[in-house]
Parts: sequence; structure tokens; C-alpha cells
Amino acid sequence: MTPPFDTSKLDQLLEEAGADLLLTVSKHNIQYLLGGYRYFFFAHGDAFATDRYLPILGYVPNKLEQAFYVGAGNEPWGLEVHPIWPPNIVTRSWTSIDAAATAVELIRKLGIGPRRIAVESSFLPADAMEVFRRELPDAQFIAAFPVLEELRAVKNKDELQHIKDGAAAIVDSMLATFQSASPGLTEAELVERLRIEQSQRGLIFDYALVTSGLKFGRAPSSRPWGSGEALSLDTAGYCHGYLADMARMAVLGRPTPLMQDLLDEIRFVQDQARLAVAPGRFGKEVYQAGYAATEKCKFGKSFGFVAHGMGLISHEAPRLRHNDEIGYEGAHAERPLEPGMVLSIETGIKHPEAGFVKLEDTLAVTETGWEAYGDWGRNWNQV
Amino acid sequence: MTPPFDTSKLDQLLEEAGADLLLTVSKHNIQYLLGGYRYFFFAHGDAFATDRYLPILGYVPNKLEQAFYVGAGNEPWGLEVHPIWPPNIVTRSWTSIDAAATAVELIRKLGIGPRRIAVESSFLPADAMEVFRRELPDAQFIAAFPVLEELRAVKNKDELQHIKDGAAAIVDSMLATFQSASPGLTEAELVERLRIEQSQRGLIFDYALVTSGLKFGRAPSSRPWGSGEALSLDTAGYCHGYLADMARMAVLGRPTPLMQDLLDEIRFVQDQARLAVAPGRFGKEVYQAGYAATEKCKFGKSFGFVAHGMGLISHEAPRLRHNDEIGYEGAHAERPLEPGMVLSIETGIKHPEAGFVKLEDTLAVTETGWEAYGDWGRNWNQV
Repeated sequence: MTPPFDTSKLDQLLEEAGADLLLTVSKHNIQYLLGGYRYFFFAHGDAFATDRYLPILGYVPNKLEQAFYVGAGNEPWGLEVHPIWPPNIVTRSWTSIDAAATAVELIRKLGIGPRRIAVESSFLPADAMEVFRRELPDAQFIAAFPVLEELRAVKNKDELQHIKDGAAAIVDSMLATFQSASPGLTEAELVERLRIEQSQRGLIFDYALVTSGLKFGRAPSSRPWGSGEALSLDTAGYCHGYLADMARMAVLGRPTPLMQDLLDEIRFVQDQARLAVAPGRFGKEVYQAGYAATEKCKFGKSFGFVAHGMGLISHEAPRLRHNDEIGYEGAHAERPLEPGMVLSIETGIKHPEAGFVKLEDTLAVTETGWEAYGDWGRNWNQV
Repeated sequence: MTPPFDTSKLDQLLEEAGADLLLTVSKHNIQYLLGGYRYFFFAHGDAFATDRYLPILGYVPNKLEQAFYVGAGNEPWGLEVHPIWPPNIVTRSWTSIDAAATAVELIRKLGIGPRRIAVESSFLPADAMEVFRRELPDAQFIAAFPVLEELRAVKNKDELQHIKDGAAAIVDSMLATFQSASPGLTEAELVERLRIEQSQRGLIFDYALVTSGLKFGRAPSSRPWGSGEALSLDTAGYCHGYLADMARMAVLGRPTPLMQDLLDEIRFVQDQARLAVAPGRFGKEVYQAGYAATEKCKFGKSFGFVAHGMGLISHEAPRLRHNDEIGYEGAHAERPLEPGMVLSIETGIKHPEAGFVKLEDTLAVTETGWEAYGDWGRNWNQV
């Protein structure tokens, strides 16, 4: 079997980072490096018996034969149905310390002798890290995050299909939830319906932000959706591990002229921002286009506008601007977008008379511009 | 607000462990200590932007006023709808290092001055642990796991209700899945139906082990369920965070006499093991009763028999025997069962002519003996 990702790109990224071994433990990165494999038994939870599940994938640049995978004691169940490419596989661990010790054993047996190891230090458990530090005392540990995020920034055809399918399913789920609603259903009840609608369409529900009427807190609450009120759903679910994350609006009855104006302006900003999406355009241009459109809007001063990459996790590369709050660099602000990148574009407003009004759309960068996924239901959905 | 758990028990357990501060980070233990609270936005995933969600709950024995909670930057959304009891709450972190640094800040501000800190070292990220070690250089770190597991061993009325509701829903989901099936549906398709059935009954699907016919691998595969074949479902889902985990059998057509004999014997073992469940009986007696029943069975030599506690995670206290494979002590083998403990009892066989045949049941220890939850569908469900 051959790895399902661009090994030469990973080799180059690791070389630039000065790493001679990559150890990944997060489910999303392991799924990426193993071509969609997540061990089904621990796909949703980690805790088990006295400890936890901790898969470890080891990758040595330019030496595929030294790649290894450490899995749980019952993981042959999963590997039988979904074979994976690393030539060295050991499935016997039931604790994170076991898993780390097994990885060390493989590192020695395979003669890897790492000096700089890239690790995911916010996903690697403290006790596993202690094993690595103790057993590999001469190794330095550096951050794997930038390498793995950059590796995943451009999606391949299969990934794009999952994201496209997910976007369609999540929008359809929201529209079905709107249409099944009746006055007096609470926000929490609506979100539970949405969760079931997502499940029926093959998605794994992640979360839903919801606002109804003039309430601006976004957690699903016991507040009932009242006649004439706006309802915002902003929800995420997973399609084969890839995120769908979109927002749509509904009103119980008919939108007021104010509500219509607000959503028309928001859709205008969303549509103008898209015009800056094309291969070769810089990431920051999406923001520039969004802000320029906002300035033309009557309510624009109160709009919140955000655009960010998405894929296996929300808010991943391309990063189109610096974000102080969350603390990331806008690595792609001054770099050209590439076909296969996927963007989420969001515009919203908290209006004291109309409520929370928002759209969030998903765009893939194509060879010639962009394609919007799940691009329907963007006006008021009247219930 | 007052804490929703037995603080005097936790104080005593921490004192016995010699810990003057408990730092919890796992979702199940935070849910437990916060009375069912899991921040909905990160209930299913952790990864976000450049890092991850890391909630931290600090608890000082006998000093509730020093308890603190560190949440994510957008966590006011969740806390508005589900207030929590710790008097000191800071919601601003977007990375595990941020969260740990915020916890250190609170430890200093509140004058906690810990010398021995109990941590969940397999759930605490390595980078957060480094912050603690660096900023609290005089503190020793010990394992929080035994304290927290013991604290959770006896379930209260609300917890038992969630487990009872979950058991009913998961059995109904399996039976509905069986009845909706037709020849040629694959194992993976059946499991997807089961996932939807669980969702429709309010459960969060966790996993399903499945075997059909004479295939013994337990991952959902592309193998179609054929006429006359046995089908085993062994599935888990969550009801308000509490595990439902049960196994039921079906046959496409009618069971052969061999299949009937096997399931009758397995049900016999399950039923005999229950007779050892009562307050004051030792944990090991459940195993003794199960093994004794197995010895009376024609096929008993090939039976696998397991019994273990369950609750927020699978295989938790009470631990009824030593388990070498998974590596835990049978802490309750020589200790009396108590009302409010919950047991999972499992008996199964791989038979070369009949396939994989198994039952898994859920029992709560009551004041007078036991109550079996979701205790139906235990014969062959004919489709």
C-alpha cells in the first residue's frame, strides 16, 4: 500500500522544520495520514477502563519503510476492514503510557534514532510525553502543528467531495428542521431535531448555535420560538470526518421589512466576498472584498465578517488574516489561494429589533474561481 | 449554588491520596463534578483553530470557595444556559497552554499554594503539564484517576435514570434495526441504521460491534447479512453523557436448533450471574456465579464471560476482578457491592457453525438486589 497523501510535500515540510521524526496522535491528523482511517471503536470517545485510547503514527521523512502505527489492543477489528499503509503496526496498548512505550520500542527496533521529533503537544498526553522524554533523552521536541496544517491546506478530490456532500446535507438538515417546526418548540428541541436530521443524512452531529427572537446567547436554550420571530441556526457536523459548518435563517411567519433588508445586505456581503476568491488571489483580498461590501450597507457598521479555511477541523489553513483573539497568524493573508482550498465565509449582525441574522457559506477554490457548496436556503426560510 | 456530588467523599478521597488540589480536564469527570455540564460547542470535538479546547476544573479539599473553572473564550454561551457552581470562573482560553496558564493565575490569585496536585495525566496535554511544572515548581503531581473513579462508583438517582433510559433506548434501537433489515443489507449499512435509530431515541451513538454469519471480525464491514444467518449487535451510545452498552441477537429467518441452544445457554449464564448481585455481596461473586453457570453448559467451555462497572465511561468501578490484559486491579473483587453501582454483564461464544452469539445486559444494584435495565429482546429476534 502507498500513503494516500503527498509524501514529498510532507518530507519537505519536515525538512524545513528540521524534524527527522513526526509523531501524530490527534484523530484528525491520523485520519489524514491514514487515508480516512479512524478506528471505529474509539472514533467518538477516548476514555476506556483505567485510561484512554491513544493511537500513535510515526513518520520518518524519506523512509516510508520506517513508518509505524501503534493501536489499541482490540484494533485488529478495525484494521481488518480498513487496512492501512504503514509497514510496521503494533496493536496492544490500553493506556497512553503503553502506547508511548510501544512507539519507543518501534523507534529503537527500526533504528530511527531521532534527534528532532515533531509532536502535537496539545493532543499528546502528559504521561506519554514523559515516556518520550525519558526514553529518548537526546531528542528535541518541536511543534508538528504547522507542518500538518500546511500539509492539509489543499484538499484532494475525495476530500472535496466529502465537504461538498456534507455542506448539502447540513443545509438540507437545517431546512428540514425549519419546516418541521411549529410555534412553541424550544431552541433545544429544535436543535435535537436538527441533530436527528443530520444523522439521517449521514452526518455526525457536532454542535448547533441557535438564536431565536431577540435573545442573543447562542446556546440551545429552553426559550420557545415565537410567531414572527427570526431563528438563526449555525451548525456543524462531520461527513467522513470532514466538517460541514453553515448558517441559515428562518422566520415563523413572514419576515418584517427590516429583517428582509438585513438578510439582503448580509447576502450581498457574502456574495461580494466570493468575488475575491480565485487561484492566485491573496487570502487578505477576501477580507478586503467583504469589508468593502460591508461599507456599502446601511447596517454594515454592525456586521461581523469572518472568513477562514476549513476541512478536518474548523478554522484551519488557509488563514486569511491575523486573529488576535484566537491567536493565530494570517499565514495566507499574503499568499495566493490555491485550487482545492476550502473557505468558510460568515457575515452576521445582532440587531436589537430583528434579532441575530447570519449566513455562513462554504466555498471551494477551483481552477477558475470558486464553487459554493450547499448554496441554497440563503433567503428567509418561512415556516 | 452547591456542588452536585458528595463533597465530603471527595475531600476524604483526596486526603487519603495526600492531594491538596485536584485538577480535572477530561470531559467525563468535568461533567460529573459540574452536574451534567459539558460545553455544547466542544461536547464532541476538541480541535479548534490552531490548538484545542481544554476545560480545567480546580478543586481544593474542604475549601469550596477556592474551586475554579477555566473555559474557552466563547464558553459564556454555554454557562448562560447551564450555570455551574464553582465561584471562580474564567472563560478566555483558545489553547491548552492558555488554559493552563489561566489555571495557574487562579491558583495564585486564590492563594491555593498546592504541594501535591492530583491530575489526569493521560488526558492532560503535555504542553499544559509543562506550564504546571514550570509555574508550580514545588508541587508534586499524582494520579487523580483512582480518586475520581471511586467518587463516581455509586450512582445517584438522576444518574441511574439516565442509564436506565439509555439502556431502554439502545435495546429498542437494536430491535428496530433488526426489524427494518432485509437480506443483502451489509453490516455497515445495518450499523448506519442503528446509529440513526439511536439518534432518534435521543442517544449519541458511540460505536457498534457487529458480526454476521460465520464472520468473526467485529468491525462493520461490507459483508451482507444472509438468509438464515445470525447477527450480533453489541453497541454503545450515550444518554446525557452516560453509557448504554448492550448486545442482542437476531437471525434472518429462524434460528437453527444449535443457535437456539447456544443463546439459551448464554441467557442462562447471564441470569445465573445476576443472582450474585446484591448489596453486601463481593464483586468476585458475580464472576464466581457466571463461571459456575458456564460449567453447567454444554458449550460453556467456549464461553467468554465478563462483568464490569459502567457509567460515564465503559469499564469503570466497580472492578469485579483483576484484568491482566487491560491492566487494572479488581478493586471491588473483595469489597461489597453497594446500591447505586451499575454492572454490565456479558457472555458470548464464537461458534464455527452458528457464528458469534452474545448477550450483554445492564444491572443496577438496588437496596434489595438488582434491577435489569432494557431487559428485553434477549432471545433470537427473528426477522
